[in-house]
Amino acid sequence: MSTIFTQIINREIPADIVYEDEMCLAFRDINPQAPVHVLLIPKKQIVSMATVEMEDQVILGHLMVKASEIASSLGLGESGYRLVVNTNADAGQSVFHLHIHILGGRKLTWPPG
Amino acid sequence: MSTIFTQIINREIPADIVYEDEMCLAFRDINPQAPVHVLLIPKKQIVSMATVEMEDQVILGHLMVKASEIASSLGLGESGYRLVVNTNADAGQSVFHLHIHILGGRKLTWPPG
Repeated sequence: MSTIFTQIINREIPADIVYEDEMCLAFRDINPQAPVHVLLIPKKQIVSMATVEMEDQVILGHLMVKASEIASSLGLGESGYRLVVNTNADAGQSVFHLHIHILGGRKLTWPPG
Repeated sequence: MSTIFTQIINREIPADIVYEDEMCLAFRDINPQAPVHVLLIPKKQIVSMATVEMEDQVILGHLMVKASEIASSLGLGESGYRLVVNTNADAGQSVFHLHIHILGGRKLTWPPG
């Protein structure tokens, strides 16, 4: 059930990595939708938000704190940014390894898709 | 620094509440952008993702697990849904009390705003 993101974690394919620690990895989206567009993923293979379990709470909290820190480190803290997590078909989830999109560097419109 | 969300938590103004526990509250957005559009907020007054601190990690993990559970309880688990968190002006954050948008019940387009 591994995806292209596992290959990125394992350095089997290249990515423009902006942050890494023992629990997560962040890298630039190859189809950016904003001047800054980073994907933040857990190293654990969580398929989607729909398969999240109670035991994933620590990982998810860690991801959110790191999303905040990464956005700040990329200069988005004051101007602002949008976090987006897509789950299953209605949201257009394309890789079935949970990922948080961090988008910024331009005005983001409403509704969010 | 309290906002309209504190008034909702305190039952000073009405809201269509769909979930509550000791740490968070979820209620329907009054300007829905999809057939299902719920806001999930921490009871703690966290201003935005830009002001998140390490000590908020437990709350954020709890919010994400509950976002998954609430989405499932509203029938979105299989069809899918999008989580969105807006931070500061570029993302159009309008209430400065951290909130996760849960949107579903229709196809959501890309880019997300």
